[in-house]
Amino acid sequence: MLSQRLRNDALRQRIVSAEEACTWIEDGMTVGISGFTSAGDVKVVPSALVERVKKEGKPFKINLYTGASISAADGLMAEAGIINCRLPYQSDRRMRKAINRGEVHYLDQHLSHTAEMLRSGAIHTIDVALIEAIAITEEGHIIPSTSLGNSHIYAQQAQTIIVELNLAQNLALEGLHDIYDPGEQGHRLPIPLTSAGQRIGSTKIEIDIEKIKGIVITNRPDFTSEMTPPDAETEQMAEHLVQFLMEEVEQGHLPKHLEPLQSGVGSVANAVFYGFLKSDLTDLEVYSEVLQDSVFELIDAGKIKVASGCAFTLSPARYGQVMSNLDKYRDRIVLRPQEMSNNPGIIRRLGLIAINTALEVDIYGNVNSTHVMGTQMMNGIGGSGDFARNSRLTFFCTKSYAKDGKISSIVPMVSHVDHTEHDVDVVVTEQGLADLRGLAPRQRAEQIIEHCAHPDYRPQLRAYLEEASALGGHTPHVLEKALSWHVRFQQTGTMKDETTVH
Amino acid sequence: MLSQRLRNDALRQRIVSAEEACTWIEDGMTVGISGFTSAGDVKVVPSALVERVKKEGKPFKINLYTGASISAADGLMAEAGIINCRLPYQSDRRMRKAINRGEVHYLDQHLSHTAEMLRSGAIHTIDVALIEAIAITEEGHIIPSTSLGNSHIYAQQAQTIIVELNLAQNLALEGLHDIYDPGEQGHRLPIPLTSAGQRIGSTKIEIDIEKIKGIVITNRPDFTSEMTPPDAETEQMAEHLVQFLMEEVEQGHLPKHLEPLQSGVGSVANAVFYGFLKSDLTDLEVYSEVLQDSVFELIDAGKIKVASGCAFTLSPARYGQVMSNLDKYRDRIVLRPQEMSNNPGIIRRLGLIAINTALEVDIYGNVNSTHVMGTQMMNGIGGSGDFARNSRLTFFCTKSYAKDGKISSIVPMVSHVDHTEHDVDVVVTEQGLADLRGLAPRQRAEQIIEHCAHPDYRPQLRAYLEEASALGGHTPHVLEKALSWHVRFQQTGTMKDETTVH
Ligand SMILES: CC(C)(COP(=O)(O)OP(=O)(O)OC[C@H]1O[C@@H](n2cnc3c(N)ncnc32)[C@H](O)[C@@H]1OP(=O)(O)O)[C@@H](O)C(=O)NCCC(=O)NCCS
Ligand SMILES: CC(C)(COP(=O)(O)OP(=O)(O)OC[C@H]1O[C@@H](n2cnc3c(N)ncnc32)[C@H](O)[C@@H]1OP(=O)(O)O)[C@@H](O)C(=O)NCCC(=O)NCCS
Repeated sequence: MLSQRLRNDALRQRIVSAEEACTWIEDGMTVGISGFTSAGDVKVVPSALVERVKKEGKPFKINLYTGASISAADGLMAEAGIINCRLPYQSDRRMRKAINRGEVHYLDQHLSHTAEMLRSGAIHTIDVALIEAIAITEEGHIIPSTSLGNSHIYAQQAQTIIVELNLAQNLALEGLHDIYDPGEQGHRLPIPLTSAGQRIGSTKIEIDIEKIKGIVITNRPDFTSEMTPPDAETEQMAEHLVQFLMEEVEQGHLPKHLEPLQSGVGSVANAVFYGFLKSDLTDLEVYSEVLQDSVFELIDAGKIKVASGCAFTLSPARYGQVMSNLDKYRDRIVLRPQEMSNNPGIIRRLGLIAINTALEVDIYGNVNSTHVMGTQMMNGIGGSGDFARNSRLTFFCTKSYAKDGKISSIVPMVSHVDHTEHDVDVVVTEQGLADLRGLAPRQRAEQIIEHCAHPDYRPQLRAYLEEASALGGHTPHVLEKALSWHVRFQQTGTMKDETTVH
Repeated sequence: MLSQRLRNDALRQRIVSAEEACTWIEDGMTVGISGFTSAGDVKVVPSALVERVKKEGKPFKINLYTGASISAADGLMAEAGIINCRLPYQSDRRMRKAINRGEVHYLDQHLSHTAEMLRSGAIHTIDVALIEAIAITEEGHIIPSTSLGNSHIYAQQAQTIIVELNLAQNLALEGLHDIYDPGEQGHRLPIPLTSAGQRIGSTKIEIDIEKIKGIVITNRPDFTSEMTPPDAETEQMAEHLVQFLMEEVEQGHLPKHLEPLQSGVGSVANAVFYGFLKSDLTDLEVYSEVLQDSVFELIDAGKIKVASGCAFTLSPARYGQVMSNLDKYRDRIVLRPQEMSNNPGIIRRLGLIAINTALEVDIYGNVNSTHVMGTQMMNGIGGSGDFARNSRLTFFCTKSYAKDGKISSIVPMVSHVDHTEHDVDVVVTEQGLADLRGLAPRQRAEQIIEHCAHPDYRPQLRAYLEEASALGGHTPHVLEKALSWHVRFQQTGTMKDETTVH
């Protein structure tokens, strides 16, 4: 019944088609949309906009702000060439191409920074916010769906709001959200959150009802895709990592229930969580961005007490199971805005354990998570920096090699730096694990080469370290060779150097 | 009168000579000492230790933890070869050399991280804490002198404490300190600080009196040195920066009194603050690490309302003037532990304006503040990362060139990354200023080359950018040439490329 979804009768007047709503978005505008991964993104206005612009055939570009990556709309809009500036994260093949051609100005941001930048006027203000909702209250407040991301700050800052009211999203999502607005910098009270599951805010996005210009009714579940299943190597990484945590518990460095866990999107993170299933750990907590399949399995198994995130990122089967059993998870799940899930002060206060993924790591522990061969953007830094810098214990995982061994993911110098060695405690590959805490650069290099690098590349890495160390320096390098592995790959198709004596 | 300084009579029994106290420090121990810059460091036990070890002629090494850099003791100990591991910051010529030879294992840390790492067991625990005090209370609590740094966490975590009771430090320093201990991660309440001048803690380091094993009486003022006076170029940088801030105020992006200011040590920072003297800004606040001469001049001129730091870093003349007029500054000054002055959550809450210095910046806005030619450690990252990442507005300043123009401080790719482009809002050189907020990498490169690079190097930089952009990518690079400027300098003594057509 629509009245459950649209609880203010007057708002019925504002129901419009996607085709009409999209005409309110004008050339040059900045549009903030809901969506964090394919959870809770807007589903029909973006494609209607693309259709309209194609039909009109006039020059048209907007700035597109999201929570993080979104589903198909990113690719559609990139392909149509209607994006001027895009922030703060994406992972779409077509968007990525447009970015790497220099056609889309991509602002790759720490996910906790976007809201602050809007408040301080550092980036374009929002003209139109496009938000998916499960309902709109009597007062005109928006009840979001399967993600929160940046929806609340976009709605708050926008001149005009268009709501996509999605009848396919379960109304039982109401109450899972916890929307806290810290207010202006310089005039803030301390954020009162002191535990992962605590509720400190509103369950609705509270905005002035007059800003809602139109409501588009939709009826499509989130796009979901299968999770890459763990393979032998991600399972090995997970084993190393879980074993390390157990040892930290034994040594009294971590409590038995660990500390709240953050994990990046992807198969490694999922494998690690599945690793906990087999362990005898209990009373775990999660304070992360995305809540993936494994989180719900661990809740079902009685291992996770509470999980906080800013989006549900589920496989098709799990999406159905979770959405039809929301009451079962109600007391164990909190969805927060990304400036709360990724808040530096809170991450530090709670003392998180952060598990993220690298493309490549250098022998000194610097991490590249974004730029293939130093130049081609993959996705973006996402929240990895928020967590890596501020957590109590920070892991970076990567397979020791890529492209069938033609690339070593352990290199003399990373071709791009996202996380400096200061923010990297432990490096994990399928080969093993290097605990870098308390080590100086030369000591780190030994640990990383001997424990994390693929055996095929160890002799080359040792040779580099030896040559560099002879030249001296706190962080020894042979500058003319520091990036030579990447250059060799570009020129010969492999990082392997046939001249190194094995 | 000693009784004002040593307020518990029983403690008189524990007065010892430096020579005796230093025998309690054994081979393999970890020693945490007071001192942040040359303010409030311990003055006699380290040199007594060096003497003793020389005399004994036995193998002897300790791990040395401080607040930040200290005065002569660092060099003495490095020269004597008695340091195994050193953290978290240093700036001594002899220590630097030992680090760069790989003899001292240097852990270059974000200054806010050290205390957390001690709490979580990530680094060696403290055996002996050596703390300078102006007095010890009846309860055995320590009243620190001209800096706080890490003194409180070292004293708290140590097995044994040795106090250097310095009669030359003014007793009127009592009451200026504000020592707040956030407690264990995961069991913390929000830190209640909501304004730069607020007091939230104790004026003493509260420890168990029984841990005080010895008290050494000293009578030496802090070592002070002349500040490098601003030259034409640092003055130009300061002008660009102050003008930019005034424009931000005019545009309504910043309030008239700005936001609390942080500035690194050094002449640029000082010049910027002198720039404020000439401006009509008032009611300024400072939330920084070191309080330098200019802060006190601005207080005297009625421009700074309140200044929070973790150390006084003053010139000889200013040291005398401030120390003999402490009552005048009493309501305007707060000294905090460095985990508070540099706390990510507080920096973000207060919305600071951060001004730090780079050695080199690349065309995309990545900053190297520590490693000359990518390898030789200069000082360390210090607190620059704590501030750059979390402030509302982050500046990095550098002269556009070094070594008489043989080095360009604007390069295609920095040879070491301390701050990624995500954490750099504005780059300032004597040439001008590049506002990078809201810009994608290729756009940033244009701003930096045209506004910040030295004209002599602009053609070379433009040629690099053009060649790189033709290859494509979000952050275009020609990998085989990315570090070629540094290699050229090493090989030919200049970064200038005579083959570039001007
Ligand atoms: C780093 C990141 C791209 C890894 O993703 P992943 O899916 O786990 O990793 P994969 O091993 O499948 O690698 C992805 C691709 O990169 C390639 N790759 C991996 N390592 C590489 C390297 N060192 N050099 C070049 N390419 C590499 C892989 O071959 C694969 O290519 P393909 O897509 O053509 O098959 C991803 O985790 C990411 O975007 N992270 C940054 C954001 C983040 O951390 N978010 C979560 C925190 S909140
Ligand atoms: C970066 C830093 C070293 C600059 O120091 P500074 O005294 O302001 O800078 P100067 O211009 O005098 O340069 C210092 C030296 O580096 C050299 N230098 C400067 N730029 C250089 C470059 N791009 N390449 C090589 N050497 C360079 C200078 O020639 C000078 O050498 P000298 O000592 O032989 O004369 C200093 O600010 C620092 O250590 N910063 C990191 C920590 C920090 O930011 N702390 C405060 C925040 S809380």
